[in-house]
Amino acid sequence: MTKSDHTRCDLMIFGALGDLANRKLFPALYQLERAELLAEGSRVLALARHEHSTDDVRQQIVDNLRQRVPAEEFDQSVVERLVQRVEYRSLDFSCCESYPELNGWRDSVNNNLIVYMATPPSLYGVIARNLRDSDCCSENIRVVVEKPIGHDLQSSRVINDALGEVYAESELFRIDHYLGKETVQNLIALRFANNLFASQWDQNHISHVEITVAESLGIEGRWGYFDKAGQLRDMIQNHLLQLLCLIAMDPPSDLSADSIRDEKVKVLKALRKITPAMMEHYAVRGQYTAGSSEGKAVPGYLDEKGADKSSDTETFVALKVEIDNWRWSGVPFYIRTGKRLPEKFSQIVIHFKPAPHYIFDPDQKHLANNKLIIRLQPDEGMALKILTKDQGLDKGMRLRQGPLELSFAETFAKVRIPEAYERLLWEVMKGQQYLFVRRDEVEHAWRWIDQIITNWQDSGEPPKRYAAGGWGPVASVALITRDGRNWYEDV
Amino acid sequence: MTKSDHTRCDLMIFGALGDLANRKLFPALYQLERAELLAEGSRVLALARHEHSTDDVRQQIVDNLRQRVPAEEFDQSVVERLVQRVEYRSLDFSCCESYPELNGWRDSVNNNLIVYMATPPSLYGVIARNLRDSDCCSENIRVVVEKPIGHDLQSSRVINDALGEVYAESELFRIDHYLGKETVQNLIALRFANNLFASQWDQNHISHVEITVAESLGIEGRWGYFDKAGQLRDMIQNHLLQLLCLIAMDPPSDLSADSIRDEKVKVLKALRKITPAMMEHYAVRGQYTAGSSEGKAVPGYLDEKGADKSSDTETFVALKVEIDNWRWSGVPFYIRTGKRLPEKFSQIVIHFKPAPHYIFDPDQKHLANNKLIIRLQPDEGMALKILTKDQGLDKGMRLRQGPLELSFAETFAKVRIPEAYERLLWEVMKGQQYLFVRRDEVEHAWRWIDQIITNWQDSGEPPKRYAAGGWGPVASVALITRDGRNWYEDV
Repeated sequence: MTKSDHTRCDLMIFGALGDLANRKLFPALYQLERAELLAEGSRVLALARHEHSTDDVRQQIVDNLRQRVPAEEFDQSVVERLVQRVEYRSLDFSCCESYPELNGWRDSVNNNLIVYMATPPSLYGVIARNLRDSDCCSENIRVVVEKPIGHDLQSSRVINDALGEVYAESELFRIDHYLGKETVQNLIALRFANNLFASQWDQNHISHVEITVAESLGIEGRWGYFDKAGQLRDMIQNHLLQLLCLIAMDPPSDLSADSIRDEKVKVLKALRKITPAMMEHYAVRGQYTAGSSEGKAVPGYLDEKGADKSSDTETFVALKVEIDNWRWSGVPFYIRTGKRLPEKFSQIVIHFKPAPHYIFDPDQKHLANNKLIIRLQPDEGMALKILTKDQGLDKGMRLRQGPLELSFAETFAKVRIPEAYERLLWEVMKGQQYLFVRRDEVEHAWRWIDQIITNWQDSGEPPKRYAAGGWGPVASVALITRDGRNWYEDV
Repeated sequence: MTKSDHTRCDLMIFGALGDLANRKLFPALYQLERAELLAEGSRVLALARHEHSTDDVRQQIVDNLRQRVPAEEFDQSVVERLVQRVEYRSLDFSCCESYPELNGWRDSVNNNLIVYMATPPSLYGVIARNLRDSDCCSENIRVVVEKPIGHDLQSSRVINDALGEVYAESELFRIDHYLGKETVQNLIALRFANNLFASQWDQNHISHVEITVAESLGIEGRWGYFDKAGQLRDMIQNHLLQLLCLIAMDPPSDLSADSIRDEKVKVLKALRKITPAMMEHYAVRGQYTAGSSEGKAVPGYLDEKGADKSSDTETFVALKVEIDNWRWSGVPFYIRTGKRLPEKFSQIVIHFKPAPHYIFDPDQKHLANNKLIIRLQPDEGMALKILTKDQGLDKGMRLRQGPLELSFAETFAKVRIPEAYERLLWEVMKGQQYLFVRRDEVEHAWRWIDQIITNWQDSGEPPKRYAAGGWGPVASVALITRDGRNWYEDV
C-alpha cells in the first residue's frame, strides 16, 4: 500500500460555506494539494443549507483562495485540481430525511470517510445522529469537531455525550489549532529528544515558567459571541492549558496519541484548585478601556459595536498556576492572555534556576539564570539565553547575556512552515490523533476553569480595567512581582 | 586611585628586537595604546644586545607596526604616542656589570616594574640574577616569561628554580598564549555562570570530550628548533592540557588566580598515567610525508629545509586521556593536534549523553545526543546542537539537528576581539595572574607528558606517517572509533 492509499479520503465538510471553511479549511486543502499530499481519488463534499450548483461553489472556492493564498504560493493549476475534487450539496443538517442521499456520493470501498463539522457545536450531536440513522457512519470514519466544546464542564459533557453516543473516542478528532503549530509540536522534540533539557526539566532545575498569548486585536465585530465566553473560556481553557500540558507533562513512553494524552491528563488533574481565598494572588481578570492600538485610537470593550455596557466579561486573564506533583512542586506557571495588548505575540519562557554558587561580579548576579524562550509567533523559533564573557579588553570577567538563537524562519529558510490547519487536516487523513484533544482532557480542563469562573461570579468584583495598548491591568504585574519576578522582556 | 594609577608601569622588554617582540608584543602594546589603556606615565625600555639609537629603534617599531597592524586599525597618532614611551638600551644580558645603569631609567616611585623576558629560556635565570645583583628587582616587580619552560620535568625545574631563587611565585607570569584567547577565557563564564551547563558537567551527563588544535602550516623554516621538541612538547604539554584543565576542572570557589589554578592542578594530578601496555590504544604519534596544503604540493617533514632524514620527531599527536576523579570517571577526553592538517582550526566538542529513553524514529537514534561545540578559531563562537522537529508537512515527528549558534564575530559585531597578547599584557599590568601558569601546573603537566615520551623512546617504534593535507595517521581515527565514536565533523 502506498502512502496515498493510506490517506485517500472522502471529506464531508458540514458548513462548507462558512467562515472557518473559507478562512482555514479550503486554504489548508489547497496547500495539501499543492504539496501533492492529497491522494489521487480523494474527494470533498461541501455541505451547507443554501441551494448552489457545484460550479458556483467551485467558483466561490477559487475566488476565496485567490484572496487568501499568498500570491507567491498561488498556482491556478493546483486550484483547478482541488476544485475538481469538490462537489456541493445543499443539506438541512437537522433534517434526517435528506441524509441518505449522501450515501450516493460516498466511495465507501476505497476511501476513509472524514466528517468535518465546521458548524456551531449545538449541531454536532444532530449531525452525528442523522449520519448514524442514515447509515452514513462507516467503520472508517473520522469525525473532526471544533471548539468550543461547551462553556463549562456540564455543557461540554452534553456535547461529548451526543458525539460519544454515535462515535468511539478513537474516531473523534477535537481540534485545538494551537496543537497544529510547528513550534508547539516542536515542544515534544525539544523536551524529549534533548537530554540537555530533558534532564533539567523539573523543580530541581527550573524556577518558574511563563506563558503569554497576546493579541493586539480587540473584538472585531463578534462582541455578542465573545461576551458569552470571555478570555478564560476562549483562550485559557483550551490553548493555554494545552501549552501548559505540553511543557509540564511527564515524558510519555512512546509517541502514540494515548501515551501523550495520558500524560497531559495527569497534568490537568494535578492543577492546584484556586480557592476563593487564593483568588487575589492567583487570578487576575481585566477588561480593556479606550486606548490605542498600532498608533490608532480604539474604543473600550464596553464601547465596541453591539456592546452591553454592563458586561463584566474579561478580555484579559493572568493566572498563577501551581502543579501539585513531583516534577513541578514549587514551580509556578504564570500564564496570561488578553486582547488589545501592544502586539500579537505568543511565547513560553522557561526560567532555569541559577547555579548554586556565584563567582562573578556581584552586580551582575541578577543575570545569572538561563532562560529558554520558545516563540510561537510572530516568528517561530527558540532562543537560549546563556551568559558569556563580555568582549573587549576593558571588560575583565564581566558577563554578557547572549542568546543562542534558532529562528525557524531563518534556519529552515527554504522550507515553508505549514499552517496549523494543514498539519491537522493531514493528521486526520493519516488517522493520527496525537494532535487532537481527548474527552477527558476537555473535561479536566473545564473542571479546573469552572471553579475560577464560579469564584469570580461569587465575588461580584468587576474585572480590572486596562487601557487598550497596554500589557493588562496592574494587578497582573503584581501577580508575578509579588514573587520577586517579572514578566520576561527581551532587552 | 584611578584605574590608570593601578596599571601604570615601567615595562622592560629583554629581547625587544626579536621575533616575539615584533610579532606579538609591540602590536599588542599598540592596541593597548589605541584603546587608551596604557596609563599616562607608563614607559617601555627596549633591551637587546646590538647598538642602536632610540630613534632608530622607534623607527623600526613604526615600520613593524605599519606592516603588522591591520590597515583599518592603524593610526599614526597612536603609533607616535606609543613610541614616545619607548627608550632603547643595548645590553649584554649575561653581563652583570651593565645592569646597574637600568636603574637610571627606572621610575621606581610611581610605576610597577614589569620585566618581559622575550628571550630563550636559558637566559631567564641569568637575567633574574643579574637584576637582583644590581638591585633592579623592586617590591612591585612582575616577571613575564614565555614557553617552553624546559623540555621535560627535570629541565623545567632548573628554569623554575632559577626564577624562584629571585622571585616569588606571585611575581611570576608564565605565558601560555592560549589562555589569552577570548574564547578560552569564555570557558570560565560558560561553565560557571550557566547552571544549564554547570549542572550537567560530569560523567552523569557527558559521554566524552574532543579537543582538536589543527595547523595547516608545516615547519616553516624552524626545523631545527621544532625537531628537538616535537608536537607533544610544543602543543600538548601546554596549550591542549590547559584547555583540558579549563574544561575538566571542578568549579573554583572564587575567581582568584590561585583558586582557579588549584583546580587545574587537581585535574593534572588526576590524569591517568599512560603505561607502556596502554600506549597502543591511548597514544598515536604521526609525522607528515609529502602531500598538499591549500592546493599546493608540499614536502614531507623529512624533506623540509634543514631536516635530518632520520628524525623520529612527531608532527602529530592524538591521545585518549582518562581523568581519574569523581567528575570524569569513564569520560575519555580525545585530544589531537598536528601540523599539515587540512585547515587551521581549533575546537572543543562536549558530547552529552542521550536521554535515557528514546521515543522517536529508530533510524534517527544516532542523532540523539546534544553537543556543545566551542570554536577557538578560525571564527570564535559556540554552537549547541539540539534536536528539533523537522519542518514540513510530510516530516511527521522526524528530528533534525539544528544548531543554536553564537558566533562572537557576529554577535559582538561592533567589538573588536582582542588578540591573546593584548589581554595577557593588560592582565600583567593589572597584576592579575589567573591567566598565567603556576609552577606546579607546569611540573604536573611535564610529569604526565614525560612518561609518554619515555614510552615512545623505549618502544623504538617510529611515528606513523600521514600525508600532508590529511587528518593524521589512520591510527588516530582508530583511537576513537575503537570506542564506537568518531571525531566530530560538522555536517
